Amino acid sequence: MFTLVVNGLMSCIAYLVVVRIIPPLEGMFIKANLYGIDLSKTKKDKVPEAIGVVTGCIFLIALFLFIPVPFSSSIFENADFPHDEFVELIAALLSICCMLLLGFADDVLDLKWRHKLLLPTVASLPLLMVYYVNFNSTTVIIPKPFRSWFGFSINLGLLYYVYMGMLAVFCTNAINILAGVNGLEAGQSVIIAMSIAIFNLLELYGDLWKAHRFSLYFIFPYIATSLGLLKYNWYPSRVFVGDTFCYFSGMTFAVVGILGHFSKTMLLFFIPQVINFLYSVPQLFRLVPCPRHRIPRYNPQTDKLEISTTTFKLSDLNVTGIICLSILKKLRLIHWKEYYKEDSEKWVQCNNFTLLNFFIVLLGPMREVALTKYLLIFQVICSLLAFSIRYPLASLFYDV
Amino acid sequence: MFTLVVNGLMSCIAYLVVVRIIPPLEGMFIKANLYGIDLSKTKKDKVPEAIGVVTGCIFLIALFLFIPVPFSSSIFENADFPHDEFVELIAALLSICCMLLLGFADDVLDLKWRHKLLLPTVASLPLLMVYYVNFNSTTVIIPKPFRSWFGFSINLGLLYYVYMGMLAVFCTNAINILAGVNGLEAGQSVIIAMSIAIFNLLELYGDLWKAHRFSLYFIFPYIATSLGLLKYNWYPSRVFVGDTFCYFSGMTFAVVGILGHFSKTMLLFFIPQVINFLYSVPQLFRLVPCPRHRIPRYNPQTDKLEISTTTFKLSDLNVTGIICLSILKKLRLIHWKEYYKEDSEKWVQCNNFTLLNFFIVLLGPMREVALTKYLLIFQVICSLLAFSIRYPLASLFYDV
Repeated sequence: MFTLVVNGLMSCIAYLVVVRIIPPLEGMFIKANLYGIDLSKTKKDKVPEAIGVVTGCIFLIALFLFIPVPFSSSIFENADFPHDEFVELIAALLSICCMLLLGFADDVLDLKWRHKLLLPTVASLPLLMVYYVNFNSTTVIIPKPFRSWFGFSINLGLLYYVYMGMLAVFCTNAINILAGVNGLEAGQSVIIAMSIAIFNLLELYGDLWKAHRFSLYFIFPYIATSLGLLKYNWYPSRVFVGDTFCYFSGMTFAVVGILGHFSKTMLLFFIPQVINFLYSVPQLFRLVPCPRHRIPRYNPQTDKLEISTTTFKLSDLNVTGIICLSILKKLRLIHWKEYYKEDSEKWVQCNNFTLLNFFIVLLGPMREVALTKYLLIFQVICSLLAFSIRYPLASLFYDV
Repeated sequence: MFTLVVNGLMSCIAYLVVVRIIPPLEGMFIKANLYGIDLSKTKKDKVPEAIGVVTGCIFLIALFLFIPVPFSSSIFENADFPHDEFVELIAALLSICCMLLLGFADDVLDLKWRHKLLLPTVASLPLLMVYYVNFNSTTVIIPKPFRSWFGFSINLGLLYYVYMGMLAVFCTNAINILAGVNGLEAGQSVIIAMSIAIFNLLELYGDLWKAHRFSLYFIFPYIATSLGLLKYNWYPSRVFVGDTFCYFSGMTFAVVGILGHFSKTMLLFFIPQVINFLYSVPQLFRLVPCPRHRIPRYNPQTDKLEISTTTFKLSDLNVTGIICLSILKKLRLIHWKEYYKEDSEKWVQCNNFTLLNFFIVLLGPMREVALTKYLLIFQVICSLLAFSIRYPLASLFYDV
């Protein structure tokens, strides 16, 4: 437990450093052309972008300084050095550092979509290699109802590595597309990280306590640095987190999920992101026209956010698109308005398919900060749901 | 040897990738405001800056893909996995990746001097930790003439770690300050890397062959990617390498020097950089006024480079400054011109203290490409000198 206390103290220091270091750096980012204009404000100030690179670096420095701590006993007692645990720590840092570099490069250079999918996969290679040499357990226990078909367990082999490789890509992009109002990216990441931390702390008394302690080594500094960032990213944002932060967060979650052996439980904490992704599918796969920006529209008269919309001729959609839309319409999950233009064809206006717009469809136009709060409350509720799935319900499907 | 062949093949592919990928990325860098104007050309085109990040990433990807190769036999034969060798590879990549991130951040954000000294030290922490747990040999053999005073060997303890920590800072900045003409940073780095490769190949038949093979794993891809970069950075430069490249190169050299156990021999390949540093000392420590840019002055009439100068009142210098200058003047190592201004005080104009200006003082104004060639030839000569110090002369000072 000593190592966790040291880690916690270092995390507190990291929080203070982040809080103190961001304001003086703001000008540096604007000077370097790294800034955005907040579309949901009347003032059109330059807001520094990609500040996630600062918290990422502080996170890395904190963990670099922490490296010797878990191994202090082996060092002082001249015992056999646990190289296998050591390499886990180093490889995890390598993957995170690599991702931070890629994220920052993306913010600066605006990488193409294919890079955004390819590079996280490459960055997770060292991690998979460590998993391979240290555990190489690719066997999955089958839930009870399905055991008559698949048996007690199934060895996924290579497929399990593909799954782990895609985990980083998923976590990164899942956070990246549930975004668009001040404080949401950092806020949701902090809630996910806190859920992971609670889960790890509960499991510290289980058989796999070592893996969960390992996860906490990363999650504490992550929460600390992200809270520091959230202080400035909260409404009204003084700084934007940038893709850097999403890349960095996604990889941190993937790392602890993989090396902490709870990647499936971790996905449970991503329910809002999964819902947002599924809801976005018709636009992501271009079944419905998708504008460049899908964030809610700001109405300067009322200082409230309204839905942003996409407009199209109904006859331009293909069959799959029409089926998707009619299901969503029937379930009242979208705003839907039909009208005829001079070409006497039926045109449709509906909201962009994001969770943000859906909340506005449901609750009506609201101030930006209210929307952020609703979404974060939703994230917390989903985490509670995740815990109830993981603990009471899991006993129905698995022997505990 | 099989692993070295695979590594060599992967390096060739890395070279081809670098050569193909740089041209399409040029526009991306200019769009992101990452460009410089070549001061030594009549055309004032935007030249993309910080392209070192591209070669660095290709280098990392090549090594990520190479990771499993050296361990393939342990994996297939189910033998005891050599975690200690594995962690060396991963930690080395972590330090290099970290440095690439810092270098790129420096190019984008223009970091302060204190960051430039602090951050490389932090980035080398994982490396030192690995050195500590894997070797922790801090004993230095004393050269024969000094053994009567110090004994056969001396244990430097913590001091040795300080020395290794400073190695990264030294290598980085040594390359960074011997710069200013097209192709020089990349060119000198390639020559240093080739010298290291030759040294490693010679030592492959010695006792420490494993350490030297480890070094070659990094040096081959490094040479390949840097040669690819040099192709576009050579006179007239289509791209600039940026601080990113210097950081990345410096750390790569430090890594192989430390984990390959030849950090002292490696320093021998930095003779021109050391000379340049010593020659620069009066300006670096502000004994003599130091302008923002010290690169040679371009004369568009002749298309030749001339010395750039610094001008000051002789009475403004302190004692140390005057002593330095008079020694340099006596040895004819500087250009020196005295004159009187209307204030009837003695003013002095002398060249900026860089090796580049010194070559022009020595050989007269010349075209930029000629200066680069002279400096690179000088680098090769110094490498030959280094080998003659390391091999024939070392036997006078050490038992071989």
